Amino acid sequence: MTRVAVLGYGYWGPNVARNFSALSDCELYAVCDPDPVRLEVAKGLYPAIECRTRYQDLLDDDAVDAIAICTPVLTHYEMAKASLLAGKHVLVEKPMTSSVKTSEELVHLAAVRGLTLQVDHTFVYSAPVQAIRGMIDSGSLGDVLYIDSMRINLGLFRSEVGVLWDLAVHDVSIINHLIGQRPIWVSASGAAPYGNFENLAYITLMYPNELIAHVNVNWLSPVKLRSMVIGGSAQMVVYDDLAPSEKLKIYDKGVSIIEDDPAHKNLLVDYRVGSMTAPHLARIEPLKEMCSDYIRAITTSEPPLVDGEAGLEVVRIVAAAAESLKKAGERITLPARVS
Amino acid sequence: MTRVAVLGYGYWGPNVARNFSALSDCELYAVCDPDPVRLEVAKGLYPAIECRTRYQDLLDDDAVDAIAICTPVLTHYEMAKASLLAGKHVLVEKPMTSSVKTSEELVHLAAVRGLTLQVDHTFVYSAPVQAIRGMIDSGSLGDVLYIDSMRINLGLFRSEVGVLWDLAVHDVSIINHLIGQRPIWVSASGAAPYGNFENLAYITLMYPNELIAHVNVNWLSPVKLRSMVIGGSAQMVVYDDLAPSEKLKIYDKGVSIIEDDPAHKNLLVDYRVGSMTAPHLARIEPLKEMCSDYIRAITTSEPPLVDGEAGLEVVRIVAAAAESLKKAGERITLPARVS
Amino acid sequence: MTRVAVLGYGYWGPNVARNFSALSDCELYAVCDPDPVRLEVAKGLYPAIECRTRYQDLLDDDAVDAIAICTPVLTHYEMAKASLLAGKHVLVEKPMTSSVKTSEELVHLAAVRGLTLQVDHTFVYSAPVQAIRGMIDSGSLGDVLYIDSMRINLGLFRSEVGVLWDLAVHDVSIINHLIGQRPIWVSASGAAPYGNFENLAYITLMYPNELIAHVNVNWLSPVKLRSMVIGGSAQMVVYDDLAPSEKLKIYDKGVSIIEDDPAHKNLLVDYRVGSMTAPHLARIEPLKEMCSDYIRAITTSEPPLVDGEAGLEVVRIVAAAAESLKKAGERITLPARVS
Amino acid sequence: MTRVAVLGYGYWGPNVARNFSALSDCELYAVCDPDPVRLEVAKGLYPAIECRTRYQDLLDDDAVDAIAICTPVLTHYEMAKASLLAGKHVLVEKPMTSSVKTSEELVHLAAVRGLTLQVDHTFVYSAPVQAIRGMIDSGSLGDVLYIDSMRINLGLFRSEVGVLWDLAVHDVSIINHLIGQRPIWVSASGAAPYGNFENLAYITLMYPNELIAHVNVNWLSPVKLRSMVIGGSAQMVVYDDLAPSEKLKIYDKGVSIIEDDPAHKNLLVDYRVGSMTAPHLARIEPLKEMCSDYIRAITTSEPPLVDGEAGLEVVRIVAAAAESLKKAGERITLPARVS
Repeated sequence: MTRVAVLGYGYWGPNVARNFSALSDCELYAVCDPDPVRLEVAKGLYPAIECRTRYQDLLDDDAVDAIAICTPVLTHYEMAKASLLAGKHVLVEKPMTSSVKTSEELVHLAAVRGLTLQVDHTFVYSAPVQAIRGMIDSGSLGDVLYIDSMRINLGLFRSEVGVLWDLAVHDVSIINHLIGQRPIWVSASGAAPYGNFENLAYITLMYPNELIAHVNVNWLSPVKLRSMVIGGSAQMVVYDDLAPSEKLKIYDKGVSIIEDDPAHKNLLVDYRVGSMTAPHLARIEPLKEMCSDYIRAITTSEPPLVDGEAGLEVVRIVAAAAESLKKAGERITLPARVS
Repeated sequence: MTRVAVLGYGYWGPNVARNFSALSDCELYAVCDPDPVRLEVAKGLYPAIECRTRYQDLLDDDAVDAIAICTPVLTHYEMAKASLLAGKHVLVEKPMTSSVKTSEELVHLAAVRGLTLQVDHTFVYSAPVQAIRGMIDSGSLGDVLYIDSMRINLGLFRSEVGVLWDLAVHDVSIINHLIGQRPIWVSASGAAPYGNFENLAYITLMYPNELIAHVNVNWLSPVKLRSMVIGGSAQMVVYDDLAPSEKLKIYDKGVSIIEDDPAHKNLLVDYRVGSMTAPHLARIEPLKEMCSDYIRAITTSEPPLVDGEAGLEVVRIVAAAAESLKKAGERITLPARVS
Repeated sequence: MTRVAVLGYGYWGPNVARNFSALSDCELYAVCDPDPVRLEVAKGLYPAIECRTRYQDLLDDDAVDAIAICTPVLTHYEMAKASLLAGKHVLVEKPMTSSVKTSEELVHLAAVRGLTLQVDHTFVYSAPVQAIRGMIDSGSLGDVLYIDSMRINLGLFRSEVGVLWDLAVHDVSIINHLIGQRPIWVSASGAAPYGNFENLAYITLMYPNELIAHVNVNWLSPVKLRSMVIGGSAQMVVYDDLAPSEKLKIYDKGVSIIEDDPAHKNLLVDYRVGSMTAPHLARIEPLKEMCSDYIRAITTSEPPLVDGEAGLEVVRIVAAAAESLKKAGERITLPARVS
Repeated sequence: MTRVAVLGYGYWGPNVARNFSALSDCELYAVCDPDPVRLEVAKGLYPAIECRTRYQDLLDDDAVDAIAICTPVLTHYEMAKASLLAGKHVLVEKPMTSSVKTSEELVHLAAVRGLTLQVDHTFVYSAPVQAIRGMIDSGSLGDVLYIDSMRINLGLFRSEVGVLWDLAVHDVSIINHLIGQRPIWVSASGAAPYGNFENLAYITLMYPNELIAHVNVNWLSPVKLRSMVIGGSAQMVVYDDLAPSEKLKIYDKGVSIIEDDPAHKNLLVDYRVGSMTAPHLARIEPLKEMCSDYIRAITTSEPPLVDGEAGLEVVRIVAAAAESLKKAGERITLPARVS
């Protein structure tokens, strides 16, 4: 029975705690938060748990097997590192840390110590993302030509990071999971009408085989959109995460080149317009899947779906986008992945 | 009574001819097309018109006052130049020409000869665009913070140009008209899975006062979208050109900074969420307005809404985007406008 | 070569004339309208046609083979009868006439004279309706349990009839075509806030096998809807005629009774929730199909898709609904069809 | 401090208990459920409460001031009567009871004993319904001409009642609250493809001043709709309860009769098509408002928003609809209200 301690009981921590509490093969052992009022709320719901205001006390507690870090991003590195050094498995909220160097260090540390390191990119565990991944793997989409993602709405402004580190991490983690490769270069533009961090940003990612991905994130939009178009050579998918049902629509549409004769500047194109299908998706709660995967990874010593490496990849890309944003949209080349 | 000759009777020419034919203060005098079958179709609808296969014949005809060029973009420069040299007023389909230099030459020529030069950016004449312009001018939107435009669908591929010169010219002409300024720099990325020209592209335009505009154009999308978000500091507008009614939605939404204390990394933001209004829009046919404006400009010697300068600005920006696309997304700086 | 004369060149007549003019196996021979201005418009488009202000002149003209009646409903009976008596085939706008008796007389007359009698229920010829009919015929929907139809919008008020005779004839003709049976009884309620005829009405139709159909028609709605739900025991269909694409959505959804034990008031139900598919529909123009069917029926002497009998059935049902409306919603029983 | 006991801790009881528990001016004192497992769940969340399997024990408990009945409809009468006889205030789930006679008895009993009797028609407390009521009261809609309501989806089948008593009670309670009058007659049709109770039904209600209301309820629909159109002579409202935002849309649309000359069968109508506005609605939780209203009514001895009389009116109408359904859709006349 894995005993889990949740660090941070603010916005996301209660959801994580609730899921660990509901799983049958683990125990919600403790909750830590600097605010005693928050701890009282937790105690009310889970009378049996330990409550602490200092997380170090939980690292010293041998009863704790695994840590779940649900605190602000700037504290992730310190807490995760200390947890790994104390021999605890670590699950950390997205993004893993706010720099490539610190994320690399955590990945290295977990590998050396033989501990599970997982990042909570919840969307990766969702039914629509898993279904799209399945379509790509099975070849039913053909070659993926492009991915176009939007994540816009009004608020909530964060005081410590901008939309790149707050919203775009979702899109990047999903796209990475779907494509399974590292981009060749990243470029980003944005604007910060309010505050010190970008309120809206546009990121272009060029993956191998000229697969282009684009991310549009915005905290200043009057309407809320969470949508992604995946254009394949055989089929195309529209994923609308806000649709109450039919979140995925698969279009049997496409283009074929009949004749491409550059000499005569002739491009004969054939359009295929077939049916649209919205497959029934399993009714799973992604956060529950994510928590369950953490326990499974710890128990079996096999890597979770989103391990440290996957979390590091997201940090690498978002950091490159942030660098591009500062350097006038310059393309930031990523080193080829050694695999 | 202004006599108009329409050059090109393919896809768009018939619409332009129909509108000139219906106006009361001008005469559809002639139609020119190299294909005699097309001319027969025109003659069937307008038995009184002259039909020619060579446009030069119409330039020699003193009865012709004004030319409307509805031919492929690569022929625009030659035909417009010859028409102006023959002393004819010129209306030319969008884009004006395919290079800054040739567009500049036409603007110069029209000015020297005292002739009307107009470009058919039809959307600028539409009720939604005119209404948004009115809101910006009246100050009801506050400061315009960003404009985010999408124009995506499946097909139609052009054999001679890509989406930048075919689709993005619409967005750029609308945005230019709304903002009334020249961008400081332009950057673009894209991909060409099929053929020789970009099938999809993303353009970022930075206007003065850090107003950022973004254009997403795509010939490979399974769904059709024609939408624009205009984010103002006081109100925000969503313009959906495909909506059967309520094409404009005005949101009384926004953000105010209550306290921005960088020393303490504190950003206190206040959200304003009010009502949404879809104003009733005049039922005008933009193309009719455009044709009518041409005749008015000729008759009064006053510039049309979209004159040669405005058409040249669009060419300048799209040409810069095309250059950026070739140069790895490099920001292309535009010279400050001398006004 | 069948020569067709179109009676009435107001709102719908021009569409019918255009389609007959475009068909290769017939000739638009004449147009009749009491208004000389309308005739001039017709002559401008079709210089070769005969134009008449009195329809009797066309009945005397041996060159005329077939009549298409596009005049107000109250004139249908007189014109159709005279045409049949003159030995002409007859196509009449919906509804055939405004009473069962007159419609019966026309059906009888056409049968006796061996002439084609067709009613222009255009929607029956549309791709969505034909596709739904195909699904019912193939059994893929299972048993049809109910049909729920809405046809609401603001205006246009007719001065001579209410929504039953103007709008509901569409729904009834579609439902009749889908089910292929006569209802057992009809009941209707409505209201007439403005004018002398009902502005909105609700009709219930009970078909054999307890198949219930319901029609909601309204001239006073702020929003426009043209939708129909067909609930089958195996699949369910939503038909949205206003959708720009995906007019049909087929839901693999349903209910099965696992255990129904009235003694114990137990109803155990199993829900099946599968995928949704929007099939690609042929891009046909229903009015063109309808006109083409008329010529085919005349040429082959085989009945058209919507013959006099089918038109009479619609009149029978709408007349029953109108009677019910007057009689406080009383159920009006229709005689069983002798087949 | 009013002490509340909740009877029934199945589907709805936990929501009611949670709200009473959160209110500051009352105490969630006890929960009753025949199933000990359900009681344990309640005890886990509210450790201080009393738990009982027999509700009579709570009626004998002097500490209990008020009862909230969240049990199946067929038990409402017995439990409410016993509670009132024991001197407790009563809040009962919708519908109050399943017959007019039993509801009348409860209303009488509460009046005689001077106790609060309230029915949980939650929608009446919602922001959209309150806003529409405000528009009607202020006269901004003009005369209400019709109300058209839909409440359709797949499942959930109830084993003891059909859609009339399960779904239509919502629509009827909302419409009653908006209009504030009793209908003159009620008529209903329906079908029961599965089980013993109607799975879908259509109800027409005629209110004074020829205001017609229509309710479409269906358990067998592949799509989920919760919408209402309120057609007024000055403005019209569309209320979509499933919209994530903009649940109310107010259309400045309408019709005026310019000239209505029956002698000449002339109806000249003028259409007014203005803007649409979606007002910002207060973010209230209707159930919380309802619970709060119960406590307020008890404390002040003033009637709640939905008192016994209002609940009885709903029962009266739904019972009439059920009677009509059995009697072939016959119009069931309701006695004029004595006020």
